[in-house]
Amino acid sequence: MSTPEVVSLHPTPEQYAYAFGGHAPLLTVSPGTIVELSTEDCFAGNVHGVEDLPSQVCTFPFLNPVTGPIAVEGAEPGDTLAVHFVEIVPARDWAVSTTFPHFGALTTTHSTAMLHPALEERVWMYDVDVAAGVCRFQARRSGFSVELPLDPMHGTVGVAPAANEVIMSITPAAHGGNMDTPELRAGVTAYFGVNVGGGMLAIGDGHARQGEGEACGTAVEAAMRTVVVVDLVKGQAPPSPRLESDDYVMTTGSAKPLEDAYRMSQHDLVGWTSALLGLEELDAYQLVSQVGLAPAGNVVDTNYTMVGKLPKSLLGTNQAYDGLHDRLRGTAADYLRQR
Amino acid sequence: MSTPEVVSLHPTPEQYAYAFGGHAPLLTVSPGTIVELSTEDCFAGNVHGVEDLPSQVCTFPFLNPVTGPIAVEGAEPGDTLAVHFVEIVPARDWAVSTTFPHFGALTTTHSTAMLHPALEERVWMYDVDVAAGVCRFQARRSGFSVELPLDPMHGTVGVAPAANEVIMSITPAAHGGNMDTPELRAGVTAYFGVNVGGGMLAIGDGHARQGEGEACGTAVEAAMRTVVVVDLVKGQAPPSPRLESDDYVMTTGSAKPLEDAYRMSQHDLVGWTSALLGLEELDAYQLVSQVGLAPAGNVVDTNYTMVGKLPKSLLGTNQAYDGLHDRLRGTAADYLRQR
Amino acid sequence: MSTPEVVSLHPTPEQYAYAFGGHAPLLTVSPGTIVELSTEDCFAGNVHGVEDLPSQVCTFPFLNPVTGPIAVEGAEPGDTLAVHFVEIVPARDWAVSTTFPHFGALTTTHSTAMLHPALEERVWMYDVDVAAGVCRFQARRSGFSVELPLDPMHGTVGVAPAANEVIMSITPAAHGGNMDTPELRAGVTAYFGVNVGGGMLAIGDGHARQGEGEACGTAVEAAMRTVVVVDLVKGQAPPSPRLESDDYVMTTGSAKPLEDAYRMSQHDLVGWTSALLGLEELDAYQLVSQVGLAPAGNVVDTNYTMVGKLPKSLLGTNQAYDGLHDRLRGTAADYLRQR
Amino acid sequence: MSTPEVVSLHPTPEQYAYAFGGHAPLLTVSPGTIVELSTEDCFAGNVHGVEDLPSQVCTFPFLNPVTGPIAVEGAEPGDTLAVHFVEIVPARDWAVSTTFPHFGALTTTHSTAMLHPALEERVWMYDVDVAAGVCRFQARRSGFSVELPLDPMHGTVGVAPAANEVIMSITPAAHGGNMDTPELRAGVTAYFGVNVGGGMLAIGDGHARQGEGEACGTAVEAAMRTVVVVDLVKGQAPPSPRLESDDYVMTTGSAKPLEDAYRMSQHDLVGWTSALLGLEELDAYQLVSQVGLAPAGNVVDTNYTMVGKLPKSLLGTNQAYDGLHDRLRGTAADYLRQR
Repeated sequence: MSTPEVVSLHPTPEQYAYAFGGHAPLLTVSPGTIVELSTEDCFAGNVHGVEDLPSQVCTFPFLNPVTGPIAVEGAEPGDTLAVHFVEIVPARDWAVSTTFPHFGALTTTHSTAMLHPALEERVWMYDVDVAAGVCRFQARRSGFSVELPLDPMHGTVGVAPAANEVIMSITPAAHGGNMDTPELRAGVTAYFGVNVGGGMLAIGDGHARQGEGEACGTAVEAAMRTVVVVDLVKGQAPPSPRLESDDYVMTTGSAKPLEDAYRMSQHDLVGWTSALLGLEELDAYQLVSQVGLAPAGNVVDTNYTMVGKLPKSLLGTNQAYDGLHDRLRGTAADYLRQR
Repeated sequence: MSTPEVVSLHPTPEQYAYAFGGHAPLLTVSPGTIVELSTEDCFAGNVHGVEDLPSQVCTFPFLNPVTGPIAVEGAEPGDTLAVHFVEIVPARDWAVSTTFPHFGALTTTHSTAMLHPALEERVWMYDVDVAAGVCRFQARRSGFSVELPLDPMHGTVGVAPAANEVIMSITPAAHGGNMDTPELRAGVTAYFGVNVGGGMLAIGDGHARQGEGEACGTAVEAAMRTVVVVDLVKGQAPPSPRLESDDYVMTTGSAKPLEDAYRMSQHDLVGWTSALLGLEELDAYQLVSQVGLAPAGNVVDTNYTMVGKLPKSLLGTNQAYDGLHDRLRGTAADYLRQR
Repeated sequence: MSTPEVVSLHPTPEQYAYAFGGHAPLLTVSPGTIVELSTEDCFAGNVHGVEDLPSQVCTFPFLNPVTGPIAVEGAEPGDTLAVHFVEIVPARDWAVSTTFPHFGALTTTHSTAMLHPALEERVWMYDVDVAAGVCRFQARRSGFSVELPLDPMHGTVGVAPAANEVIMSITPAAHGGNMDTPELRAGVTAYFGVNVGGGMLAIGDGHARQGEGEACGTAVEAAMRTVVVVDLVKGQAPPSPRLESDDYVMTTGSAKPLEDAYRMSQHDLVGWTSALLGLEELDAYQLVSQVGLAPAGNVVDTNYTMVGKLPKSLLGTNQAYDGLHDRLRGTAADYLRQR
Repeated sequence: MSTPEVVSLHPTPEQYAYAFGGHAPLLTVSPGTIVELSTEDCFAGNVHGVEDLPSQVCTFPFLNPVTGPIAVEGAEPGDTLAVHFVEIVPARDWAVSTTFPHFGALTTTHSTAMLHPALEERVWMYDVDVAAGVCRFQARRSGFSVELPLDPMHGTVGVAPAANEVIMSITPAAHGGNMDTPELRAGVTAYFGVNVGGGMLAIGDGHARQGEGEACGTAVEAAMRTVVVVDLVKGQAPPSPRLESDDYVMTTGSAKPLEDAYRMSQHDLVGWTSALLGLEELDAYQLVSQVGLAPAGNVVDTNYTMVGKLPKSLLGTNQAYDGLHDRLRGTAADYLRQR
């Protein structure tokens, strides 16, 4: 096995994309390449303090910048683009979260339209200490403060959509996008169905940490220094993005209402389990029903996301994608050792 | 502190209830009483083998029997009935799960009405080994078999509803009922708002284990031997049932669509967090958004259930309900030691 | 054909029911009986002017009183109870509508739970002129005023539910209840599946008129003098209430989310059309898709209601329930002529 | 007033678009121009008989072709593009409807994902008689046949979306698109918020008639000869498309779940009513609640559509958009007279 190539992708502010689809690649790589990249936060770096209200300092539609797209050589429609997250590290010693008018799970929005005035727009700044592995929440209306463990992840990862669509980066759908699940952390491999030549991977929306559901609409938003291995599986495109950690195979569904997101994620989990274990479909349905986990991803975006999780301990010697995750873990370990 | 009273409740088949509300108490206890009780499975014990299709051996509405109601002396509307689960042990060396026509997350139902014929009705029998802590899944259409860890829980726990309603035991709502969340396991305290004198607690629908969402509509259904401590908090009725384990305070929401169940659970989690930490509401919203967990309970019943979870590590010295959970843990430990 | 019996039912305030199920009959009639009855408004008559805020003058759960139940001799589970509305006349020269905290389509509610304070609670009084056939809307924050046509209807009509449930009168479901559709006006026959002996019909929640959806949560609420013919069809219980006017056969679905209410109503409309025209199911699906109407009933109650409508002009000589609607129209015409 | 310019737009097969956004204009017109145009059916004309199953003769994503875009001179973001439908006439003496695997309200779909096999894919051919004003439904599994009134409309009308998105023509959203409401018939003016220079109007998906909800997923699909007047209002962009007939002002909401589509349409109807009548917001909410109509548009597409309708009889002398609808009616009448 040859040493994988390592390349860098650090966009200038003008190079960020704000959509999936419709962009020429910023970078083209061969399968197996390690990419060191940087991402800006979902506010495009415009919120620096509690006085910087997003509705004033950000400009629609320049929200949620993504780094990419990265074209993968040989990727064709129907293939599976695999992205292994080697490392996700906050790039600054601060991060930020906010409410935003008409955005969030516990507020009227443009679609859940009501006659209430918007909730107060408010900014929370978090101190980030990468070495200690913590960020600090500081209440705005009292002296309460508490350290929270860092658990860095990317809210937005995806490929160019089908049917030549160009979809805002804040939308999660079959192509991936803004799924906002804390499961997308370092050590995880994500699988996306390829819709266009090259696949066109893009990554953004780093979170120092995030609760399941992302209730207020934003996580602990942070610019990131991220390392990924980009790889390719011929064929086998999943209907929606899949994830794999050392312990779980995971499916996602992004839709409204939330039960449809659940149905999509469980439907694919049943199908994947059936394929991995050679189980007839209803037998797989039964097994998933008793062992599957189903955490919320986001319940705030233009589509909601649910995740389905099956413990890999049930798989015995069966491996997803012919053991690709383990091989990418090995690549990542080598990279981290030699860096 | 005096030794708590220990009483037993083992209903005859005729004594099971199939609804919350409208029943005279089977038992009346003083707050703090330990109750040793038995529950039948959701099929009322009528499914004994793979040939026993529920639609043939069960009779509507005699599904999902509950044990109770148990009246608690002094419980008045607006109070909080606390139930600590000391022990939940499968009563037999087998358990059962099934599909059922027009029931489940991945099938047309009477409300998600479609023109498809019903999915096949099928029964899976599980061997249960309490000593080893496992149950065994056996596929019906292949030789695949796998041991799953026991994680016993009750799908159905609740009190009499408000407004003199009588609600089938298969419905989860503000009074509790069939929430079907795996979080309701031994070691957990559940809190219910009291709507009628005595509260009228009932418990049923034991599961040897269950996945989040209960996708196929039934878990590993088992008759149970269960021990609870029943207690009372004056006032402080939560809007929907709350749970507390050693590690988490938890809220529930039961509604459709699933995002409303999520909203209810998160709304109460924000309010509870605000009260426990003295946080202003938006500050609590922010904190919950970054640290809360949001697993599905069920996505198959007449209402769907979502759970909101906050790690108690964030609470410092603040305790829910004045430390009742810890005291009930102590009571449980004493009981188990002395039994 | 003998002259139908005419009986009266004018409950005292203590006699109103607030739920479907669990009540002894106020009246027992033989099939074909004409019943002259009175109903109180949904506020139990407690709102008399713009200063009478419902949250202050009404007492939960004494909301939405219904007149009944009326037992029908010979009605058994599986039968169809038919109610023809001969006349619905406002009983007073005023009616009332309000907003109500956490109730309505454009406000946070207990299930669509948000962090907004409740919208303002406000009362609108309407002058009702039965002779002229109008009621008058008067804005509260300006001098704007406009006459609206009377279109009297009952928001709440139903029978005792299945499974011995007792369901608040504000809930619409398979038993009928608070469907809040303007289609339930005089000249219409409603069909309900019987769940218990006698069926146990109850009627309430008169509206001088109502928009589709009942967006603010209440209609132009009015006490009513109503005349119905109560009849019985053996067997043929519909899955949810059906309606029939001179021009349309109509189905209903009451569920959440609203698309499930739509699905239920269309599913039954396909089935009914198939039965009436002898069409194979997909052929009926096709025909309904091109000619069916689908107005909202309510989008505010504990379940939402959609209505499916098929023009009877398509039915040729085929008649629903063997022409019962036409016969009841005749009975009604005779009654009105002879009164 | 000068005579309006009349121009034609008859695309070649290669010129059809399949998305809103991302296309250079096929035609540029000044405000007030009459455009005579032709549209192909949603199957791109590939279904000619009952043996032509869409899944075999159509090629994704070449479904639902639209004619355009048409740029309007002077249209800038924030403006309102007005389209008055002068005439919509089926171009052929036949039309077609079908079921389609995983598409429709009463079938499992990719988002309401279930384990059922797809419903049968079936084609119905309709004879169209424009002179007689009818089309004929012919059952496929029996001899039943019935004439239905023609009520031609366009399912798909819209402008380029905001944020540089490119959205498949089968999706309805804030930019319009595939709303599939029978209200979009000749005699109606539609109003769209402009997002990009020129607005970029496109029109397609003619229906010889359609039921509310479009339950089976397709209407009586027909190529059309259509005449529109395209006009421009500076500013006043509505949040979602609005419609105006001689009798009603109408709003739309396209979202999932269906109650959100209802909320959006009613929210805008409240706001528009408030503006037209000078009513305070809650007063407008009250009035709309009592007089508004709320029919389903579609309950099958990637977003669902609800329509809100207010009778113009309530408006007195107040006119939407300064009487533009009436002026365009006049323009249309002149055109039809002089043609």
